[in-house]
Amino acid sequence: MPTLDICFSPELLPLYDLTGRVAVVVDILRATSSIVTALAQGVAHLVPVSEVTECQALAADGYLTAAERDGRQAEGVDLGNSPFGYLDGAVAVRGRAVAITTTNGTRALHLSQAADVVVVGAFLNLAAVAEFVRRQNKDVVIVCAGWKGKFCLEDTLYGGALAARLADAFNVTGSDATLAALDLWQAAEPDVAAYLLKSSHVRRLNSLESHKDMEFCVRPDVYDVVPVYRNGRIVDEVMR
Amino acid sequence: MPTLDICFSPELLPLYDLTGRVAVVVDILRATSSIVTALAQGVAHLVPVSEVTECQALAADGYLTAAERDGRQAEGVDLGNSPFGYLDGAVAVRGRAVAITTTNGTRALHLSQAADVVVVGAFLNLAAVAEFVRRQNKDVVIVCAGWKGKFCLEDTLYGGALAARLADAFNVTGSDATLAALDLWQAAEPDVAAYLLKSSHVRRLNSLESHKDMEFCVRPDVYDVVPVYRNGRIVDEVMR
Repeated sequence: MPTLDICFSPELLPLYDLTGRVAVVVDILRATSSIVTALAQGVAHLVPVSEVTECQALAADGYLTAAERDGRQAEGVDLGNSPFGYLDGAVAVRGRAVAITTTNGTRALHLSQAADVVVVGAFLNLAAVAEFVRRQNKDVVIVCAGWKGKFCLEDTLYGGALAARLADAFNVTGSDATLAALDLWQAAEPDVAAYLLKSSHVRRLNSLESHKDMEFCVRPDVYDVVPVYRNGRIVDEVMR
Repeated sequence: MPTLDICFSPELLPLYDLTGRVAVVVDILRATSSIVTALAQGVAHLVPVSEVTECQALAADGYLTAAERDGRQAEGVDLGNSPFGYLDGAVAVRGRAVAITTTNGTRALHLSQAADVVVVGAFLNLAAVAEFVRRQNKDVVIVCAGWKGKFCLEDTLYGGALAARLADAFNVTGSDATLAALDLWQAAEPDVAAYLLKSSHVRRLNSLESHKDMEFCVRPDVYDVVPVYRNGRIVDEVMR
């Protein structure tokens, strides 16, 4: 039976051997939720980059630019880090490619490249990723983006939710991190939004807009996309 | 109101500023539980060292030697890492100094030295440490030794237990790590030993001896000692 482990921070990734494994990268608020939404809205592919300037440089190649720093849209780019940027119609996204950089999510993606397959996970595509991972039949490491390297609740809850969905086919009791995430998910599942309202990140982004984003980002099984990060690009595996 | 934060692994310590703070170092299974027991049994002081050879070299200066690697007593030393080594009478410990090295605990102590005060915490001296920390009236970071750098349940539960005891006088909602530890502690508190039986570390040490150790190490408020690590030595602050 393949194992499912959770890495609570990119800073801990050197302790995990990703070789031959599937990495599920998660940054619920909001990078991976936005990436999933973007592909669901017909974005052709996304390129995650480290710096805002790299992001802006890709505009010359026809890319839309999406950049967030410390929770806000960066200057001189088309989109921020809210999934609603791909939904509200202010920017036409269908068929476009997007260059994206975020505080935590991009870093987690780049550091996960040693894995056999790197999948982008969010509550929005929970069922689709669970099904995809199940078919891979390899050991899985869920890589939480965290907040500036530190543990964060929303990514951990996603880890617990995915582990719960896969518990019939994967060993989810082999690591303390997975056991803890499962217990926290059990506590949060009745009302994830209410649970996260007490978290530091959500309070840090305390505004009407971020509250709306959070409530959207915790909705499970909304989109049937499986974003895979390969050769520098994130594409929907289902559509390939 | 001072803050209480939890660092789940020594690998994450570079993200925490310990300056001006109290660090409570915890390695429930079993380094800090043994250190607390040692001082309670009249050990004069302990010197934590990194290598077994350093530990053995101190024997020439009259030190008892205590060394554990991967859960077992190392060769050629007086004591392992079980608290019962200080209790069973096989080695006379009262008034002696002890050189100690363990897989995770020693490393966490060394990496915490930037703090104003470094205290050694365990369930065994939970009330004594809570009272000591309360009187310091400084920000607190609980430093979990973890297991080879990874998150572990037993140290996290201790963090939750100490946070719960101090919640009236410290801000315990400012970090997701503390919130998670409090929720896990709430789940575990009715029967900590039973809860830990599912953890990977306890299963790894699955034997009669380790089970007995674990049940001892989760007993709260047994000893009234406050081990402080200063100038390379761990001494009981209460006795000074």
